[in-house]
Amino acid sequence: MSTRTDAQAEIGRLLVCGEDRPGIVATVSTLLSEFDANIIALDQYSTDPEGGRFFQRTEFHMPHLSARLDDVKDALDKAITRGLGMTWELIERKTPKRVAIFASKSDHCLLDLLWRCRRGDLSMHISMVVSNHPDLSRDVRQFGIPYFHVPVDKHDRATAENRHVELLCGNVDLVVLARYMQVLSGDFLDRIGVPVINIHHSFLPAFIGAGPYQKAKDRGVKLIGATAHYVTEDLDEGPIIEQDAIRVTHKATTADLTRRGADVERQVLARAVAWHCDDRVIRDGRTTVVFSGNT
Amino acid sequence: MSTRTDAQAEIGRLLVCGEDRPGIVATVSTLLSEFDANIIALDQYSTDPEGGRFFQRTEFHMPHLSARLDDVKDALDKAITRGLGMTWELIERKTPKRVAIFASKSDHCLLDLLWRCRRGDLSMHISMVVSNHPDLSRDVRQFGIPYFHVPVDKHDRATAENRHVELLCGNVDLVVLARYMQVLSGDFLDRIGVPVINIHHSFLPAFIGAGPYQKAKDRGVKLIGATAHYVTEDLDEGPIIEQDAIRVTHKATTADLTRRGADVERQVLARAVAWHCDDRVIRDGRTTVVFSGNT
Amino acid sequence: MSTRTDAQAEIGRLLVCGEDRPGIVATVSTLLSEFDANIIALDQYSTDPEGGRFFQRTEFHMPHLSARLDDVKDALDKAITRGLGMTWELIERKTPKRVAIFASKSDHCLLDLLWRCRRGDLSMHISMVVSNHPDLSRDVRQFGIPYFHVPVDKHDRATAENRHVELLCGNVDLVVLARYMQVLSGDFLDRIGVPVINIHHSFLPAFIGAGPYQKAKDRGVKLIGATAHYVTEDLDEGPIIEQDAIRVTHKATTADLTRRGADVERQVLARAVAWHCDDRVIRDGRTTVVFSGNT
Amino acid sequence: MSTRTDAQAEIGRLLVCGEDRPGIVATVSTLLSEFDANIIALDQYSTDPEGGRFFQRTEFHMPHLSARLDDVKDALDKAITRGLGMTWELIERKTPKRVAIFASKSDHCLLDLLWRCRRGDLSMHISMVVSNHPDLSRDVRQFGIPYFHVPVDKHDRATAENRHVELLCGNVDLVVLARYMQVLSGDFLDRIGVPVINIHHSFLPAFIGAGPYQKAKDRGVKLIGATAHYVTEDLDEGPIIEQDAIRVTHKATTADLTRRGADVERQVLARAVAWHCDDRVIRDGRTTVVFSGNT
Repeated sequence: MSTRTDAQAEIGRLLVCGEDRPGIVATVSTLLSEFDANIIALDQYSTDPEGGRFFQRTEFHMPHLSARLDDVKDALDKAITRGLGMTWELIERKTPKRVAIFASKSDHCLLDLLWRCRRGDLSMHISMVVSNHPDLSRDVRQFGIPYFHVPVDKHDRATAENRHVELLCGNVDLVVLARYMQVLSGDFLDRIGVPVINIHHSFLPAFIGAGPYQKAKDRGVKLIGATAHYVTEDLDEGPIIEQDAIRVTHKATTADLTRRGADVERQVLARAVAWHCDDRVIRDGRTTVVFSGNT
Repeated sequence: MSTRTDAQAEIGRLLVCGEDRPGIVATVSTLLSEFDANIIALDQYSTDPEGGRFFQRTEFHMPHLSARLDDVKDALDKAITRGLGMTWELIERKTPKRVAIFASKSDHCLLDLLWRCRRGDLSMHISMVVSNHPDLSRDVRQFGIPYFHVPVDKHDRATAENRHVELLCGNVDLVVLARYMQVLSGDFLDRIGVPVINIHHSFLPAFIGAGPYQKAKDRGVKLIGATAHYVTEDLDEGPIIEQDAIRVTHKATTADLTRRGADVERQVLARAVAWHCDDRVIRDGRTTVVFSGNT
Repeated sequence: MSTRTDAQAEIGRLLVCGEDRPGIVATVSTLLSEFDANIIALDQYSTDPEGGRFFQRTEFHMPHLSARLDDVKDALDKAITRGLGMTWELIERKTPKRVAIFASKSDHCLLDLLWRCRRGDLSMHISMVVSNHPDLSRDVRQFGIPYFHVPVDKHDRATAENRHVELLCGNVDLVVLARYMQVLSGDFLDRIGVPVINIHHSFLPAFIGAGPYQKAKDRGVKLIGATAHYVTEDLDEGPIIEQDAIRVTHKATTADLTRRGADVERQVLARAVAWHCDDRVIRDGRTTVVFSGNT
Repeated sequence: MSTRTDAQAEIGRLLVCGEDRPGIVATVSTLLSEFDANIIALDQYSTDPEGGRFFQRTEFHMPHLSARLDDVKDALDKAITRGLGMTWELIERKTPKRVAIFASKSDHCLLDLLWRCRRGDLSMHISMVVSNHPDLSRDVRQFGIPYFHVPVDKHDRATAENRHVELLCGNVDLVVLARYMQVLSGDFLDRIGVPVINIHHSFLPAFIGAGPYQKAKDRGVKLIGATAHYVTEDLDEGPIIEQDAIRVTHKATTADLTRRGADVERQVLARAVAWHCDDRVIRDGRTTVVFSGNT
C-alpha cells in the first residue's frame, strides 16, 4: 500500500469470472495492452482447468483511465461478455469504498478499523457508524465520523431496519458488522443491496451461534479463533473470507478467552475488510476466492 | 529431555488431584523435603481457589527413590489420601510407558512416532504395532518392533477386538491410534483398561466424523487443523490434549489439504503422546489439564 | 484477569530468587500456610537442580494481607533471606504499577496500550505520556492522561534527560518506550532507577539498529518480527521479554513490512508490559524468566 | 498436487524474467494461446512497474507439448528473447528434477525428504545420497536409493570435492544439503553447475555460523527458527527461499531447542525443495521470488 500519487489516480482493477476456457488471459491482457495499460498485478484461479469456474483479478496502470472509462467498458463488453460469455467488473482504485460500520457495546473491532483507516492502511471511507447503543458515540465522533444511534426493539426489528435502510441506501458500498450483536433479516440484506461482512468470535464451523468462548472453555479446546465472513440469511454460514487462531491452555478462563480472542477478532476483521476494499475477494457459491496479495 | 544417567533413575513424578483447599503445596513439598527430595519442576492449577478442583504435578530428584518407594507411598497415603482427602499417583521416570500403536494404511503418523522414539525424543517403549492391513509391516519391523496384522470384519468386530485384547492386556500402558480408521467399542475400551489417544484430522469440534478435509474444502475454511484426544465412547468427543492449525487458501484441493494436514497431524499426535508419556496430561471431566513444559 | 473484588485486595505475589537448593518450595509454602494463605498460582524454574539459579513466583490469597504485611515480611526475611540465603520481593496485587509511556510520532503502540489499559486488560496506571513531538497530545489527553512534550536536541540530550528525570523520579515504577525514537544514556537509566521496556521492530538479534524493515527487505527474509526487551546501556542487547513474527513474501514493499510489522509490535509490546505489570518477568543476567500464565 | 495422468504429461511451465515493460503478459498469453494452450496457473511480480524487474511463472496444458517443444521454443525465442529482450525457461512437468541429498550424521531432514518423496509429495527423483559418514547408509538403502560415503579430510577438501563432482556432474539437477556439516568451496559450486539448497538451523540473519541453538539459548530469544537458502560462496548469506519459527521459553535447554528446532528444519527444507522442484522459486540477486502456490 504505497503513497497515493497522481499516477495512482489512473490505476484500475478488472475482475473477470465465468466458466474456464482457453484464451481468457490472452484476451484480457491483449485488450488492456491495446489501451496502453501496464499490468502491475495479476492473479487468476480456476477450480478446474477442464470446465471449472475461472476467476481473474488484474490491477493495471492506464494513462487517462478515467477519461477513457466508457471506451474500455465497451471493449470489455464486447470481448469478455459477448466474446467469452463471462462477467467482469472494472473499478478505479482512486474511488475508495464507502463503508458503514455497525457496532453494539464492544469497542475493539470498531476502534481498530477507525485507527487503521485514519493511518491510511485501509482503502476505504467510513461514512458512518451505526449502533443500537449510545455508548461509543464519543469515541467515534472524535474521528470526525457520524454516529447514528438506532435502538433495536427485539419485538419489532422492522422499525430499526427501516431506519437502517434510510441511512444506508445510496450512501454506502459495504456494511461491516464489528461485533454488532443483532441478527439481520434476509429481507434487510436484500433491501440494502451491498455486501455485509461480519466477524464471528470462533473458528467456524466450530461453535456456531451465541457464546462461542464459553463453549470453547467447556469443550477444552487448545486453540481459539475468529472468522470474518459475508453475511447471508443463514447465520454463521456465509462465505468465509479470513480466519485465524491462537493457542490457549486449560488455565484460561472464559474471560481470558474473550479478552485474548478480541485481538484475533480485530485482526481477522481488518484483513477481511482490507482485502474486500482492494477488490481481492470474489464470492464463489458458499466459499470465496481471496487474492490476498502481500498482506 | 536430557540424556539418562544413573542420577535420573532416581527421578520421580507425583500427581495430586482433588478439591482445592489451603495448604496442599506446603503438605506435598514438606513431605518430599522430609525424604531429602529436591523439586526440579512443579506445576499446579486450580479451576477455582474457592472450592475448585486442584491439580499438581511435581517432578523431583530423591536419593534411592526406588528402594524407598514403599515408604514414600505410605507417607503419601497418610498425608494426601487421608490428610487432605485427595488422590495421588507416583511414577518413577526410569520406567517408560509401554505403548501399542494402531495404524491402517497411512504411514505418516506411525513412522513419525517410530522415528522420534528411536531418536530418544519420546519417553516410551513401543511394544507393538497393530494394523488391520499388512501394508506397513516391513517399515515397522525395520525398527525392530513387532507388527501384528489383525484384519477387521466390519460385520464382526468382536473377533478382532478379542484378538486385540489378547495382545494388549497386561502388555501396554497406552494405546495410540495413529490414523487407525476403525471405530473402537466402549466395551473394548473397558476391557483394555488403559488410555487410548487418537489423532483426528480436523480442528475439533469442527468437522466431526469422516472426511474432514473434504468438508473443510466444501465449507471454504482458511485454516485446517488436527486434534489429539483421549478416546471415549462418544466418537470425536473425548478430552482434547493438543490441537494445531495451518493456513490454507482457496487454491488447495482436497488432496492438497490431506497432504498438508498430514504434517499437522503427525506433530500434534507426537506432542500429545510425548506429554502423556511424561505424565503431563491430567483428565478433568471432558477436558484436560496439560502441564506442557518446554516442548 | 477477572474483575477486582474486595477479596482481590488481599492477593499477594512473592518472587524468590537465588541459588537452587533442596527445600525452597517447602519453606515458602509452609511459611505462607502458617499465615493462612491459599496458593492460587505457583511457577518455579531452576537453571540446573544441581547448583543452578532458582526462580519462583507464587500468587496467593491471604486474609488481611495489608494489615499483616510487616509480619509477613519479617517472616520472609528470617526464612528466605537468612534461612536460605535467597532474595525475595513481596507485592500486593491491589497496587498497580505506575507507568510512563514515551512516544515519538508513531501512534500504534501508544494507542494500543492506552486502549488496553482503559478496557482493564492491563494491571497498570498510566501516569503520563512523554514525547519529543507534540503530535499525539490530543489523542492522549482524550484518555484523561497527562501529555508532556519534551523536545530533544540531539546536540544536547542532557537538557531533555534532566526534564525527564524531574517528571519521572518518584512518580513511576516503569517506563515503556512505545516506538520512542531516541537513544537513552546509561546515566539516565541509572538516575530514573526503574525498569525501561522497549519495543524493537525486528526479531532480535537480527537487524539490530535503525531501519530494520529496510534491512529485512534487502535481505529478502520470509518472516518479520518484533522484540520487547528491557533497556540496557547496550542498544538492542537488553534481556528479551517477548518476541513474535509473521510471514511475508517477496511482494511486500518496505512500506508494507512497516505497516504489517506495526501489528506485531503492538501485540508484542502489550504482552511484555502485561507480564511485567503482573510480576511475571524476572531478569536473569542477559535473559529473562517469564512465567507467562494463560496469556 | 493432483494425481498424474497422461494429460499431465502435457503440462508445461514457462518462466519469464527481465526488465518490466507493458505488454509482457499479453505477449506470453497470446503466444501460448496460439499453440492451443490453456493457462492453469499464472503468477507474476514486478519489483516496480516503472522500470523494475519482472518475473512470471505460467503453468499451462498444451496438447502434444513434447512433440511441439521445438516449435514452442522457437516462438518463445522470437517473441520473448528478441521481441521483449527478456529471458525465459520452458520446463515439462513430466520430467522430475534429479536430486542429490548430502547429509552428515543427523537423520531428521534426510529421512523426511525420503518419506515425502516416497509418498509422492515431492516432484523429484532422488538419485543419490552422499555423506561424509557411513551411519545412515542402511536407512537410505531401504528406500532403494544409492548411498555414497565420501569421507572429508578437513586438511584436504579437494579430494572429497573431486569425488563429489564425479558423482554429481551430468547426473543431478539439484543438490540439497540436509544438515551436511561441511563447507563447500566456491570452486566446487562452479564446477557442479546446479543449484544447491541448504537448511540453516536459525532464523537468518540471526545466529549466522556454527552453534545457533547455543547462541539462541545464550541470547534468551523467545522464538527459534530455520532458514532454507541457496548456497553461495558467502556462508549463510545466500538468497533465502523459506523460513519459519516456533515459540520457546526460558525452560528450554540447548538440547530442547535442538530437538524442537529439528521439526522446523525439516518442514522448512521440505517446503523449499518442493517449491524449487515445482519451478516456483526465481532468484533475484540476493533474494528470491517465491510463487508458493497452495502449499
